[in-house]
Amino acid sequence: MSEDITKNIRFGSREDHQAVEAGLDFAPKFDASGLITAVAVDAGNGEVLMVAYMNEESLRRTLELGEAVYYSRSRQELWHKGATSGHVQKVVEILADCDQDALVLRVNQQGAGACHTGYRSCFFRSVKLDSSGADGEQPAKLIPVYASKAYDAEAVYRK
Amino acid sequence: MSEDITKNIRFGSREDHQAVEAGLDFAPKFDASGLITAVAVDAGNGEVLMVAYMNEESLRRTLELGEAVYYSRSRQELWHKGATSGHVQKVVEILADCDQDALVLRVNQQGAGACHTGYRSCFFRSVKLDSSGADGEQPAKLIPVYASKAYDAEAVYRK
Repeated sequence: MSEDITKNIRFGSREDHQAVEAGLDFAPKFDASGLITAVAVDAGNGEVLMVAYMNEESLRRTLELGEAVYYSRSRQELWHKGATSGHVQKVVEILADCDQDALVLRVNQQGAGACHTGYRSCFFRSVKLDSSGADGEQPAKLIPVYASKAYDAEAVYRK
Repeated sequence: MSEDITKNIRFGSREDHQAVEAGLDFAPKFDASGLITAVAVDAGNGEVLMVAYMNEESLRRTLELGEAVYYSRSRQELWHKGATSGHVQKVVEILADCDQDALVLRVNQQGAGACHTGYRSCFFRSVKLDSSGADGEQPAKLIPVYASKAYDAEAVYRK
């Protein structure tokens, strides 16, 4: 990926709100921190795998490479997903929402899982919804979604 | 929804990072603006309908009401989705991700669509991925996803 190539794509203007919502120019909105929300879903079954963020450079690199490149807010650097684990996300399709401030990446997840904890998806717990009717203060609890992990995270991320 | 009831749910502590990632206490992280990302997906077919944001109060109200209540960043107020259009989202399940800073709402979308523009999903356009190999600067373009709109937005949102 040369810088020349990633600068080759010209995003549309966001000046005309109507055009952003109804037009066919790709004019992604990066927020005050320079980021856009990106939701990765399994291109096969639609399962949400993870929610991450992209800055303009990571979006350009994703478009060029055909693999998901995010921006890590904690490490403050470009994050080519799978560079360490081998669990690369091959991009099948990128969807933009009405105001073009969120993206959905339909991906073919390479390897056993998207989550660094060893699960297929980062969304491996669901909120227990049935305690809210009880009297008194109720602790909000989670329930496991999967019967087991998809891979041994410790082995994959060990140097 | 009384305020007493929405204050009845006690979220977990985020002090122990390991517990947040592996435990079963629901300890959502609200960012510097007090918001958490919420992705609404169709509980039936998994289609991503919209990406929105919740503050703590909107999450509490969602849990109590069983319908999606977001926080509108543009209007800076609670946003009971469907209050105007009737296109309420009945919550079937809420998933939390590994670091509990993003939620997936599996919903039964009432009415014909989630998007204010009239489409079933806000993600009604996909990015044209095949121009990046060409020489010279390439405008980034979008392609329509749906053959037609799901409902007449002008009629629904007209007073």
